[in-house]
Formats: sequence, structure tokens, C-alpha cells
Amino acid sequence: MPQSPTKPPFAKIILASFAFFLFCMCVSPVAFAKVFNAQTLTLDNGLQIVVVNNKRSPVITHMIWYKVGAADEQAGFSGMAHYLEHLLFKGTDKYEPGEFSRTVKRYGGNDNAFTSYDFTAYFQSIGKEHLEKMMIMEADRMLNAAPPPEHYASEKQVVLEERRQNTENDPRSLFNEQMRSIMFVNHPYGTPVIGWMDEIKTYEWNDVKAFYDRWYAPNNAIVIISGDVTMDDVKPIAEKTYGILPVKDIPSKTRPVLPPSYALTTLSKSHPAIHEPSFQKIFLGPSYASNRQEALALDILQEILSGGPTTRLYKSLVVDQKIAISAGMASSSDALDFGTLWLYGTPSAGISLPDLEKAIEAEVQNIIQNGVTDQEVADAILRMQDAAIFARDSLSGPAMIIGRAMTTGQSLDEIENWPQDIAKITAEDVKAVAAKYLNPSVPYHRAPVTGYLTPQAGDLAGDKE
Amino acid sequence: MPQSPTKPPFAKIILASFAFFLFCMCVSPVAFAKVFNAQTLTLDNGLQIVVVNNKRSPVITHMIWYKVGAADEQAGFSGMAHYLEHLLFKGTDKYEPGEFSRTVKRYGGNDNAFTSYDFTAYFQSIGKEHLEKMMIMEADRMLNAAPPPEHYASEKQVVLEERRQNTENDPRSLFNEQMRSIMFVNHPYGTPVIGWMDEIKTYEWNDVKAFYDRWYAPNNAIVIISGDVTMDDVKPIAEKTYGILPVKDIPSKTRPVLPPSYALTTLSKSHPAIHEPSFQKIFLGPSYASNRQEALALDILQEILSGGPTTRLYKSLVVDQKIAISAGMASSSDALDFGTLWLYGTPSAGISLPDLEKAIEAEVQNIIQNGVTDQEVADAILRMQDAAIFARDSLSGPAMIIGRAMTTGQSLDEIENWPQDIAKITAEDVKAVAAKYLNPSVPYHRAPVTGYLTPQAGDLAGDKE
Repeated sequence: MPQSPTKPPFAKIILASFAFFLFCMCVSPVAFAKVFNAQTLTLDNGLQIVVVNNKRSPVITHMIWYKVGAADEQAGFSGMAHYLEHLLFKGTDKYEPGEFSRTVKRYGGNDNAFTSYDFTAYFQSIGKEHLEKMMIMEADRMLNAAPPPEHYASEKQVVLEERRQNTENDPRSLFNEQMRSIMFVNHPYGTPVIGWMDEIKTYEWNDVKAFYDRWYAPNNAIVIISGDVTMDDVKPIAEKTYGILPVKDIPSKTRPVLPPSYALTTLSKSHPAIHEPSFQKIFLGPSYASNRQEALALDILQEILSGGPTTRLYKSLVVDQKIAISAGMASSSDALDFGTLWLYGTPSAGISLPDLEKAIEAEVQNIIQNGVTDQEVADAILRMQDAAIFARDSLSGPAMIIGRAMTTGQSLDEIENWPQDIAKITAEDVKAVAAKYLNPSVPYHRAPVTGYLTPQAGDLAGDKE
Repeated sequence: MPQSPTKPPFAKIILASFAFFLFCMCVSPVAFAKVFNAQTLTLDNGLQIVVVNNKRSPVITHMIWYKVGAADEQAGFSGMAHYLEHLLFKGTDKYEPGEFSRTVKRYGGNDNAFTSYDFTAYFQSIGKEHLEKMMIMEADRMLNAAPPPEHYASEKQVVLEERRQNTENDPRSLFNEQMRSIMFVNHPYGTPVIGWMDEIKTYEWNDVKAFYDRWYAPNNAIVIISGDVTMDDVKPIAEKTYGILPVKDIPSKTRPVLPPSYALTTLSKSHPAIHEPSFQKIFLGPSYASNRQEALALDILQEILSGGPTTRLYKSLVVDQKIAISAGMASSSDALDFGTLWLYGTPSAGISLPDLEKAIEAEVQNIIQNGVTDQEVADAILRMQDAAIFARDSLSGPAMIIGRAMTTGQSLDEIENWPQDIAKITAEDVKAVAAKYLNPSVPYHRAPVTGYLTPQAGDLAGDKE
């Protein structure tokens, strides 16, 4: 799971939710269902602090979220935000390379970081008595990064190897990367967060440093502490560590546009490492930032279509018709610019991908034509609200959810009010978003992109490649 | 024909050869077959002058080619090179808006300009006695552009209307644009020269002026004069007009990379304005700049496959099998970075696009497996050399061909030596490039992109949309 905070330090993670859509539901907005009762304040230099109290054990997760990510890179410099994230573990004027992480480890904690399109985050999970030290080191890392030159090339190699392992050697990941590049033509969401292999190789520390100087600032960050502390504990420490950092002029985020697309696009790939055929179809959707009401309605649609064994796609295709091993719909709306929606499935033996595709689309067309029932909506809302109860269970969960939402355009109030807001969505709203976003014959801004991934043998009925 | 110099002034033309591949053969390198006997020299400030003498009538074509185009725009600023080209007709410190063109017209000539990925060119065809005046005005336009602010918005409207007319209202053009955007993911060749509608609207004169200041300089340009003059006539005039312009530091052309692609992609679109179905398949190819030998071999392959009614694709599919109304292969190698190759065809009534596709691919596979005959190669070379004799016939033709080739990485010697060089290509060379570039199952760097464009009715056998 890409967002797991339990990964070992230095295995820096990339959030590429599109490529891992099967996991997306784990961090989808259902987790907002429970009010976090978070406290917040903004320091004079613009740094926002959020505290989520959790007394279960005397530990904390301390995260800093920068409102900058891969989508803010210049064309030709893909992967720079992530490479910078790596280099920020290689020391500052005050600390040796690796000293931050070694300190965390010595205190019995763990740390890591990750980069996505709209944000970059660094965190430590550690005993609460070490909060001040964490803040001292994290505040220092915000402005004083000074990785020794001998790390530039070696860390580049680490990143290249990361790409080789996670993408180049994984046909599914490569395929998803290519689908994404076609859905998001011209827009940076079409560029992989880790970067294109041949671009990662090209840029220098000077380029990366300019990016760091431009975007890393207290007024472009949010610090979130989740655990056995209150704002009264946190505030004085934050003020004397982060509070003394200077404000910067942060550029506005002017990104290349996503032009409309007109033609239906189908990608097909056969590969010996693929063991069962799969179908997916991506649609452009709203983000919480661009249209919160619609994003909420799509969460419910997702729950109705594929929120469990009794919901529409699974019940119809897997249980009743027996033409699929799995089938579902996923919605990802936590992005500054655009959300994405997927239909996906794996056919039963002897069923072709186009036939599975037709059956999935028939279920969606049924909703577009006939809507969903009030009961389905009520049940879905209840299930989602129930699931949200678990959101506060983990130490880092609330910090992850709040950070991700707030760096992609949501307010803390919106996060806290999620259970009430989702309860206001009606069956009519759900029908409307299905018709607006999931109708291939009247696409919303971009025609959908379909993918057929098959075992190399290619002996499956209807397999065209 | 996009390159025609006879279009009326102010109907600024975009060279988007990809979108107009059916016309490409008119300006393909066959035209280099005849030595132009061009004279050349480089002024002290780096401006290269080329003169092609043609005594047929006392007129000249005077062209200036800048080695900058749409592929040098920053992401998010698409269409800027072309918008700049428009604004360069709107006056300088010395000349009123439109005064340059009015002067040309008053002298009985015509002028125009065009923008492509790798170059932007301005030209006048006019009585030879006006060369000095043309050079005075063109030299002035290189550095002193000062369009009055009231033209910024109105000219933007002209460009937007141009895009509406040529692209938005033309389903074939939109379809080609989308195919290109998928073949050239991440690379600027995937962005339309005229720009994406929503980006054209955004930039300001300040942005455009910075682009102009960066790239327009004598040491980034070639002046080509074709007509009834010699270098002895031209040199003193060029020295006192262009020769006094200052040298600039021209940035190196570092463009975003074209990442490899792995999955076969098919686009399909039905539209009521499409009256007959068509198939096309695009492959990535070499450019003259990247691999001249292979580009030459592909020119011959193109000639063998589709150089006339007796060549392979037409004879097999249209004449013998009668499954196509037209079928061909086109190769475009005049680009700094990459060339493109297309297979295309229109099926006979009752034949599906996939069936036509299979038949065209069978002809190509036949060459990949069995090669071509020495006689076919010899015949193709002879036909191409014969065709090249006509290259000097028009007044502006030689200037067009030389300018296009020299701004995309070819030397004047290479242009002049084309007939000898193409004569050295063997049947083995042709087989090798077919296997390297036209084999969908072992694609070269990018998997090919296939397009099915059909009438809206969609009642054609095998039509999947």
C-alpha cells in the first residue's frame, strides 16, 4: 500500500494512486466520515498547524506537508520533486547525511517521506517527548538542505533503481503509466511522479535547489501532529522552531491545460508476466477541489457499484452472471485539478475482455437510465460512515487523511463535516454524476481510455493482441 | 497544401505535416534530387545566407528562417511561436502595423509566414529590385518588433478563430491532433503548432516578447533568396542590412524526452462530417537529423509501397484485391528530433477497417520477411531523381526545401548531394528499415498508434464504435 507509514526509512514512496487504484479505497474519503476534532492555528509566518489528539499511547506522528509536488515541475524535469525528497535525507548545514533518520531510529521511532502530484510529505512516528527535536530538525530541513555533492549521483542511481524495480520491471505499472499519460495529455498528471527514465538522468542539483528554494517555505506547508498531545503542548514548540522561519513569495500554480479529447482510445498489451487478463476504463472526474458535491456523489456511486459483495457490479457479474472473477468501480477525487474514475474487472475463464467490458458498461448504463434507489443510497452512506469510525484508530491515519485532503484544496471544516455532507447526497445526485462522468458516448471533457492487459499467450477469446 | 507560398497574406499557415500526411509527398525529400547549385556564406554576426539563382523572370523569393518553433515553447504556452509570427506583422519601432505587407503589395509582390515545430519562416515574392527594401524591413523585424497593445487581443482572436476553423470544426484534423498527442506523449511534437485552445487564451505579450528576445537573432536564422540574383548581388545588401545586427546568446534546445511506449493504442471516432471510413497507423521513425541513411532508405520504401499506381500497396489492395479505394505509406523525416511513418487507406464498400489494416500490414510484413527486389529499388530511385528535376521549377520551391531541411539539421551539402546519396541505398537497407520501424510486434521506441475514423452511422462491417 503506497501510503503505509510503516515502510522502512529510505524506501521513499511515491503516491501514484492512479497506478494503484485497487488500493485507493483504503484512503478514500470514507475515512473522513468521523470528525477528527482537530485543532488548528496558523503561525505568523503562514505555517498552518493541525493537532489530532489520540491518547492511546504516548507517541505521536509528526508530519510536514508541502503544497508542491510532481505536477509543479517544469516540462523536461520530471521526477525532480521526488528526487529532491530523497536528497532532503542527505543533510543540511547542521546535520550530516542520514543524521535525521538515525536520530529518529535511536529514539525508537521511524521516519519516511513520499511525493505525489500536489504534495510532498515527510514524517516521523516517535515518542511524544521527542516532538521538539523533530520540529527542530524538520524546520532546519525546510530551508537549509545542503546534501554533499557526492550524494547527487548516488541518490540519482537510487531513484533510477526505484523506477526500474517499480515500473520498468512491472508490466502492469508500465501499462497504467501509459494509460495515465494518454488520459492526461499535456497536463502534468500524465507524467509519472517518479519521472520519465531519460529525464531523471538529466537534471542537476542546481536545478533541484531552485525548485526547493521556490516552493519550500512555512507559508506553503502544513504541519500535522497526531497522537498524545494537544495544541497547548504543540504551540510553544512550533513557535520557537517553525515560527522563526521567514515567509517566502510562493508562485501561483499555473499548470499546462488538459485539452479535450474526442476519440475513444484503447490500449492493449500482452505480457508473459501477466497471469490473468484484466479490463479497465478510465474516465475524467471532478476533484473535491473542483466540485465537492459531485465528488461526494461519486463516492456513493462507487459504494453502490462496488462497495462490497452485495453491491451491483460484484453481485451481477461475479455472483449472478458468473462472467467475472472481479469487477468494480473506483473513484479518486483528492487532487487539485482533476479526479479520475475507473471501471475494472477480470473475466472468468472463456469470457473475452470486450464481453466483460460490455457487461460492466450495461450496469453503469442501467444507473444512467434508471438511477439508483433511495435505499441503496442510504445503505451506502451508512456503510461509509461506519467505515469512517476506524479512521482515527491508527496513529498516523488521521494525519495522512487530513494532510492529503488539505494539500489538495479541502478545508479542515470540509474534512470534519464529511459525515454530514455525504448524508445530504440523494439518489438523484448519484444518477446525475453517473450520467455526467461515466457515459462513454457523451464524455466529460476527455473521452475515456480503455485498457486490455492480457497474458502473452493471447489465446483468450476475444483477445485482439 | 500547407507550404504553398501563394496563399494570401495574413492567412498565416501552420506546417503540421503529420496532420496533412496525404500532402507530404509533395515536399518530401524527393525534391532534393536535383542539385540546386546554391551559393552560401555566413555573415560575421552568424547569419547564414543562401542564394539559388533562377533567371527565368526578374523576381525573387526572399525568405528568413528562424531556427525556433512550437517545439521550443515552454509547457503551458502552446501556440506562442505562431502567435508571435502573427504579431510580427503588426509593426516595429519604425513601421506601422501592416506596413511591411502593404509595401510588398504596393510593389506588386506577396508575403506571408508560417510556423512549425522546429522553425518559423517569413517570406516575400517580389521584383528583384526590391530586395534591399525587403532586407531592411526584415532585419528591422528581427529585433525591433513593437506591436501596439490594441493588437494583442485582436490578434489573439484571429488565432483562436484560425484554430476553430482549421481544427475544432474539422473532425479529421482533431483526430489527427489527438493521434499525434498520443504518439508524442511528453514531447512537444505532441502539442499542436497552433496551440491548445485554452492555452492560446492565457499568455500575454510580455511572455511572447521574452520568447522573441530569446530566439530571434541573426545567429539563429538563415536567409534564403531564390530567383534572378547571385551572391554577388546579394552580399553587399545583406551586409548593410542584416550584417549590422548584434549577435545573441542562443539557448541550447533542451526538450522534454519522448518516453518509450509499450501498449498498442487504437483511437476510434465516428462523426457525421466524415463521409468515408479511413484507417491509419503511425510509427515513430528516424529524422534526417538523427539518421540520414535510414531516412533515405525509408524514402525509397515509401516510393516502393506507394509511389504510384504500379507500386505495391496500390497495386495489391486497390487493383488486384479490390479491397481498398486508396492505400499508401508516407514518411516524414524533416524534423530535428523524430520522424514519423504512416500506413493509411480507405476500404472499398463492405470491407472493414480491421480487414483493410490486416491487408496493408500483410504487404509490409512481406517486405520485412522477404525484402524488396534490386529492380524495385533502382526504379524507385530513378522515379525520385526524375521527380526532383522539377524541384527548381518554381520560384519559391528551392527556398522552401532548403530552408526546411537546413532548420531541421541538414547541411546544404547534404541537400545538394541527395541524388547521389539516395542512389547508394540498397534493397538490403530498405528491408532493414522496414523491419526496424514498421513492425508492430517489435516497435521502435514507441508502439504504433492506430486510428479508425468512420461516418457517424457506424454501419460498416467491423466498425467497433
